[in-house]
Amino acid sequence: MSDYQVAIFGLGAMGYGMAGALVRAGLKTYGYDINTDAMTRFQNEGGALGAFQDVAATLDAAVIVVVNAAQTEAVLFGADGIAVKLAKGTAVVACATVAPDFARSMEARCAELGLLYIDAPVSGGTIKAGEGTLSILAAGVPEAFEKAAPVLDAMSAKVFRLGDAAGAGSSMKAVNQMLTGVQIAAMAEAMTFGMTQGVEPAQFLEVITQCAGNSWALESRAPSIVNGDYRPLSAVDIWPKDLGIVLDIAKSAKFSAPITAAALQQYLAASGSGLGGEHDSAVAKVYARNAGLTLPKQT
Amino acid sequence: MSDYQVAIFGLGAMGYGMAGALVRAGLKTYGYDINTDAMTRFQNEGGALGAFQDVAATLDAAVIVVVNAAQTEAVLFGADGIAVKLAKGTAVVACATVAPDFARSMEARCAELGLLYIDAPVSGGTIKAGEGTLSILAAGVPEAFEKAAPVLDAMSAKVFRLGDAAGAGSSMKAVNQMLTGVQIAAMAEAMTFGMTQGVEPAQFLEVITQCAGNSWALESRAPSIVNGDYRPLSAVDIWPKDLGIVLDIAKSAKFSAPITAAALQQYLAASGSGLGGEHDSAVAKVYARNAGLTLPKQT
Repeated sequence: MSDYQVAIFGLGAMGYGMAGALVRAGLKTYGYDINTDAMTRFQNEGGALGAFQDVAATLDAAVIVVVNAAQTEAVLFGADGIAVKLAKGTAVVACATVAPDFARSMEARCAELGLLYIDAPVSGGTIKAGEGTLSILAAGVPEAFEKAAPVLDAMSAKVFRLGDAAGAGSSMKAVNQMLTGVQIAAMAEAMTFGMTQGVEPAQFLEVITQCAGNSWALESRAPSIVNGDYRPLSAVDIWPKDLGIVLDIAKSAKFSAPITAAALQQYLAASGSGLGGEHDSAVAKVYARNAGLTLPKQT
Repeated sequence: MSDYQVAIFGLGAMGYGMAGALVRAGLKTYGYDINTDAMTRFQNEGGALGAFQDVAATLDAAVIVVVNAAQTEAVLFGADGIAVKLAKGTAVVACATVAPDFARSMEARCAELGLLYIDAPVSGGTIKAGEGTLSILAAGVPEAFEKAAPVLDAMSAKVFRLGDAAGAGSSMKAVNQMLTGVQIAAMAEAMTFGMTQGVEPAQFLEVITQCAGNSWALESRAPSIVNGDYRPLSAVDIWPKDLGIVLDIAKSAKFSAPITAAALQQYLAASGSGLGGEHDSAVAKVYARNAGLTLPKQT
């Protein structure tokens, strides 16, 4: 084990996997979450023991893997925020999907405290998080990259270095979420349309993955519908949030995004009809309900 | 060369490549097109010589690779239609993207003449057509598959056998076109949105191909925009036609397809503003124009 010390905030589906990747890379890794069961489980699986206030000043990096901008700000600058407790020169690796302007604001406030902020949203999902093979869409000053290097390397197969200032990472993440969100909903639209024409979901999955209609979203999400398994590895409610961020930014830039807007409506219909906590492939249930179709049941 | 004889109707971007694959497989291949230059070129590159009326009765198969249902019907049953000239037991391999009901109607009319119809739309684009590595989405009676086997094998890496009656191939093709059309337009939407946030098209291509937003459409079409090259390997005007077929079928089935409908509007805006003959990635020019962006120029 190296003497590099890192704390990770947020041990949910993504953060827990990323924390494990840090441990396996030999970094001394503290894990924190409002869910104390997750903290205990992580400590039993190689996480370091210690209250944050006792270790804060010795950390090389803090990684923040929470749901959104509000939680990121709360972790850093809330009533019990960590920023003021960290030593100058500590790297702050912020992984949530946020607006580029928010990332720039966090970078500025961290810089006032001498902290090295990296705008570092990730792509790849929970499996790649656990493997330490995410793509990281990163931006920040060179000193921040240098300080955070062991953390970024441990969590990823590829670090895209997108700029010397925060915002560029979140911009690319917004682009990626826009396409991913559209393509999950488009897959659901096409699969259920196919059902009206006698194409069974399993046949759709087999054939279209070998045709021009293929996408990462299809390969990743269509099996859930075919298997009737809507356990929320990634939930429907991610998309009203992330596509909402995208369309807010687009509106500010006077950018017309009609396909993204149409996809957002389908996720809102899913969430509004009680499916928000299900796997995001459950957006297919909206299409099925509207067309009087019966999706495959879990066997 | 085997003694199997095939005629291919339509020597456009797809048909010319498929004709070459038939020649390379050792089949005696006649090529016909209203463009006599294409016919002469094909004859100089291995195509068999002979007027259709002289060879019609000796053919094992006729392959029809035209633009749409109207042209398919004209080739088969128009004023100078081929169907009545073919011997009983000849396979008719119909590759255009058409509505499933149209495919069923053609199969029935061919059956009256003793012809073995295969509903055989293809996926893969012009490069795979030339390589003989298309995916064929095929349906028809077992005798038709048996008779057409040398042709199907020569043109494809994979023949999906989707049913014993015409319609199933065209249904799957409609599903595939729905997704492909949506995803080309979504790629253009995301790439140009990224430009408003400082993400350059080349950076978009490099990064998103390794993230969750990736798709066949992105890998296939984004390079054209990055390189400013809109030569029409596949033209904008394909999509008002194919997404129109999809939405007509969807309407008949009372299926609500809002994402596909939004994508169609973008292609219509491209076609209506004079871009119909350009590469379908030129749908990005609609987004760029609406947002005051300048796309990369050809270097």
